[in-house]
Amino acid sequence: MDFRSKKLINDPIDVVTEFIEGLVETYPGLQYLDGFPKVKVVLRADVSAATYDKVAVISGGGSGHEPAHAGFVGEGMLTAAICGDVFASPPADSILAGIRAVSGSMGCLLIVTNYTGDRLNFGLAAEQAKSEGYAVEMVIVGDDCALPPPRGIAGRRGLAGTIFVLKVAGAAAAAGLSLAEVAVEAKRASEMVGTMGVALSVCTLPGQVTSDRLGPGKMELGLGIHGEPGAAVADLQPVDIVVSHVLKQILSTETNYVPITRGSRIVLMVNGLGATPLMELMIAAGKAVPVLQLEHGLAVDRVYTGSFMTSLDMAGFSITVMKADQKILNRLDAPTKAPNWPVGADGRLPAKIPVPLPQSRSTKNDESSSRPQQLSPQGYILEIAVEAAATAVINLKDSLNEWDSKVGDGDCGSTMFRGASAILEDMKKYYPLNDPAETMKEIGSSVRKVMGGTSGILYDIFFKAAYAQLKADCNPIVIPLHWANALEAAIVAVSKYGGASAGYRTLLDALIPASSVLKEKLTGGEDPVDAFVVSAEAAVAGAESTKSMRAQAGRSSYVSADILASVPDPGAMAAASWYQAAALAVKDKYHAS
Amino acid sequence: MDFRSKKLINDPIDVVTEFIEGLVETYPGLQYLDGFPKVKVVLRADVSAATYDKVAVISGGGSGHEPAHAGFVGEGMLTAAICGDVFASPPADSILAGIRAVSGSMGCLLIVTNYTGDRLNFGLAAEQAKSEGYAVEMVIVGDDCALPPPRGIAGRRGLAGTIFVLKVAGAAAAAGLSLAEVAVEAKRASEMVGTMGVALSVCTLPGQVTSDRLGPGKMELGLGIHGEPGAAVADLQPVDIVVSHVLKQILSTETNYVPITRGSRIVLMVNGLGATPLMELMIAAGKAVPVLQLEHGLAVDRVYTGSFMTSLDMAGFSITVMKADQKILNRLDAPTKAPNWPVGADGRLPAKIPVPLPQSRSTKNDESSSRPQQLSPQGYILEIAVEAAATAVINLKDSLNEWDSKVGDGDCGSTMFRGASAILEDMKKYYPLNDPAETMKEIGSSVRKVMGGTSGILYDIFFKAAYAQLKADCNPIVIPLHWANALEAAIVAVSKYGGASAGYRTLLDALIPASSVLKEKLTGGEDPVDAFVVSAEAAVAGAESTKSMRAQAGRSSYVSADILASVPDPGAMAAASWYQAAALAVKDKYHAS
Repeated sequence: MDFRSKKLINDPIDVVTEFIEGLVETYPGLQYLDGFPKVKVVLRADVSAATYDKVAVISGGGSGHEPAHAGFVGEGMLTAAICGDVFASPPADSILAGIRAVSGSMGCLLIVTNYTGDRLNFGLAAEQAKSEGYAVEMVIVGDDCALPPPRGIAGRRGLAGTIFVLKVAGAAAAAGLSLAEVAVEAKRASEMVGTMGVALSVCTLPGQVTSDRLGPGKMELGLGIHGEPGAAVADLQPVDIVVSHVLKQILSTETNYVPITRGSRIVLMVNGLGATPLMELMIAAGKAVPVLQLEHGLAVDRVYTGSFMTSLDMAGFSITVMKADQKILNRLDAPTKAPNWPVGADGRLPAKIPVPLPQSRSTKNDESSSRPQQLSPQGYILEIAVEAAATAVINLKDSLNEWDSKVGDGDCGSTMFRGASAILEDMKKYYPLNDPAETMKEIGSSVRKVMGGTSGILYDIFFKAAYAQLKADCNPIVIPLHWANALEAAIVAVSKYGGASAGYRTLLDALIPASSVLKEKLTGGEDPVDAFVVSAEAAVAGAESTKSMRAQAGRSSYVSADILASVPDPGAMAAASWYQAAALAVKDKYHAS
Repeated sequence: MDFRSKKLINDPIDVVTEFIEGLVETYPGLQYLDGFPKVKVVLRADVSAATYDKVAVISGGGSGHEPAHAGFVGEGMLTAAICGDVFASPPADSILAGIRAVSGSMGCLLIVTNYTGDRLNFGLAAEQAKSEGYAVEMVIVGDDCALPPPRGIAGRRGLAGTIFVLKVAGAAAAAGLSLAEVAVEAKRASEMVGTMGVALSVCTLPGQVTSDRLGPGKMELGLGIHGEPGAAVADLQPVDIVVSHVLKQILSTETNYVPITRGSRIVLMVNGLGATPLMELMIAAGKAVPVLQLEHGLAVDRVYTGSFMTSLDMAGFSITVMKADQKILNRLDAPTKAPNWPVGADGRLPAKIPVPLPQSRSTKNDESSSRPQQLSPQGYILEIAVEAAATAVINLKDSLNEWDSKVGDGDCGSTMFRGASAILEDMKKYYPLNDPAETMKEIGSSVRKVMGGTSGILYDIFFKAAYAQLKADCNPIVIPLHWANALEAAIVAVSKYGGASAGYRTLLDALIPASSVLKEKLTGGEDPVDAFVVSAEAAVAGAESTKSMRAQAGRSSYVSADILASVPDPGAMAAASWYQAAALAVKDKYHAS
């Protein structure tokens, strides 16, 4: 299966010019030279060579490494980026056009990744620009630490460490330094930085077929950024081990690539290669920091995690470590308008803070509840009502399961049974029954603890909202109207968070009619117990009426209308059942007394 | 082959907590509550509930959508983000912990993507927080435009448009507005935004095997962000067509999901789903803007391109369009310290600027060159020397090819032949032979035009550097020492950009001895013609000596020492040959005169 070769592009030949068109639409601070397809140069919209009084910092190379280099154009970083075709050096004429477009009297610094094509084309452009009278310096970056010191011409490859060099040079130029001074800072930065990559997949060039070089369960270590094979292939390991290995390689005293020793201050970059989720990059960053601190004895002053220099859609990352004195930190921290330089990495604070306890204005929390020694008259009735309601649900278990097996997953009765049983059990132990509001809150907690899933949360929301309303109305003495208000508030909350309304074939189809009738009767001056009983009849009628309703959510929505018509909604039936049981128990109590 | 299921992680169960650890290492402005693994809350390091005097803006949901939501925590955007496990809503207790940690006297706004689990858990937490005395409001975002208006509870899914809502609410809160006012702005933003996604691959959950639901050549349209199937599967199309289709769906007057009509001002987001390179996102953005402007008659005021709300490692993107009046633009443009809110998207300027011509201080450019009617004595000798040099290379073609076939790719003679022929041809037409410096420049251009590859650029660099040195020394009259200086400068440039030094088995092994001898003899007061001839002998000897050298680059570095010992470096032989031919021609001319 050839997933990787699929790309959301048009003609593969146009990918770079179309990328630049999208880039400048996204970032109005960037412009490009009108020389497509040959000249592909992105530059600061606010810089004109004629008037620019700072050193221009120019970089570039083959495309396919986005956001590098064009995404780093902006005040304080690059003045221009020269884009080649995918993985191909830009031609010298295009580089020269970029030099001409942004270089003022202070001249320009070219920062070039160490690849033959880039060295030669940037070198030729530099020589041509010099012959036109421009002051030009060039710094070559080769930060790869994967391979032993190479003999001969090629040298070490330029990788993501280049981004640090661009930032240092850009900040130095923005500070008004001379060309020679900016070049010295860039050169110094390039000598302090080391990088190594690891990949899980090979990248696919636009319009080409994906290589299957890397099989399942394998990773490649020490690779470049152009899809070329890495230094070694190994079995995939946990990222902890990968990170440790890569850091050891970068900091190796054998190759001695970076002048970093115990006690050095450093900055770290974890750079995604194109198709690696930020989650994985952050995991690697979170592992690299303690390894650097504890195993290598280094002070990690900054961490930059993201995708900065990619390799098209390669999955993997590179790690870069740079020695950083205060001067370099200042350059890295200096403000820049380059859109893809990461923000928010400066400064270090302890990261972990305690989970806050409930505020003291909350009068009680769960642990402090307890069943009163002596029940008040109100507490006594409440206990009777709750007990009756829970018992009704327990008795209805099999019917609920049977109805639910026809229209849902068949466990409504069992779920409700668990909740009701927990209520009975917890009530004996610690419900503060003399405080009806707090008791509602405890019922919610009991129910959610054992019911789980949507119904557990919905009932918890129901009782928590009732609690809040009772608290708001009056506390601890509750009059019947407060109960009606609490029911109303509970219904509103369940509807709001659950998304259901009347007619959706849910528990609300029992509770909404009950609530309406209860409120109406109470405000009409009717006896509260009668009002409760009558409203319970409305609940039962409402639950029965769900037979005629289409399901709006869950599995019931896939069940045919014929079947639905023979079965009431089990949730609504359960609600009507506990509501009515409570009402009848209260009535019994009052008639008995 | 199961590439996708490879991940750079440790235990899949720890991905979210390890992500957060890396996140806070990267961004010191963020902290987390010390409640792992249950409580996974990221919050602003500078906010304490006890003293916070602005509305806290809180969001969150399942993880796997990084940078959402934790990467948007920061002044001006989120105060806290609540992270669930991958694709699972965070539990209410964890949300409540976040509310308690950051909500001060102004209360908090919960912004929730429209999924049942998120609604219920955030809803329950809201009710609990209210019961503890907190002022809490909740806004639910459902911006999906892929499906027809749904009946019932579920409603439209919350997708990347949520990010805009977070920014609007965060900016409103930062401006000091009340909870009710912030909630109104968030609600209003949520009603103006529409999103639709397209994917090329299915995401893989950590520790699970990749689904092969989407085969080669297929894409999925209108998908969610949890790996669930999209509304339709279609053949993969060019991205232009995909973008047009998605925009048409979002702006459909049938569904009427967004209140956008011709003439509206809008903002655009192109959001990567996790494994899509920035290049492809930018291409889509570059296409979406003209479609919105020209086909839909909309003013595109801002474009945000990047990965904001992903779906692990899914390849694809979503497009979001939001109606934006000045008030919303102000909220989007307001500063924020949230690390993953994109910078640099505000303001619009024309993006294309003309390619600059060479500056006027450059005395000539290529087009203005022409062969003089009458050659000066110096021009006459130059012509003879160049002609002899080029002819020598032409005559050496077969030998060069033969040597190169043993140690390289066998085309050295043919390549050099093309360069030499071009020189002879162009010289007749337009070399300004009476100006030796300009003639060197032209030779470089002739050579690069036809030779291509590394050798063409290297020789161009050689001649451009010689030109610059001749210009710097004296112009247009050139004395022999200037030629020696020019040769020296040319060698330095080739060595610098090409990376080779003496002994690397390259053309420099002929030219470096020649340059040394020439300079030595001239400064020693020897006759210039004799010095030229003697230095040419040094060039030939140097070229012959390459037989004993190891190759340092290119294909020759893979050839055994035995074979190399029988063959000189063809590049060095070519250089010695043209150098000597020029010297002998000059000698002949002077002896003849």
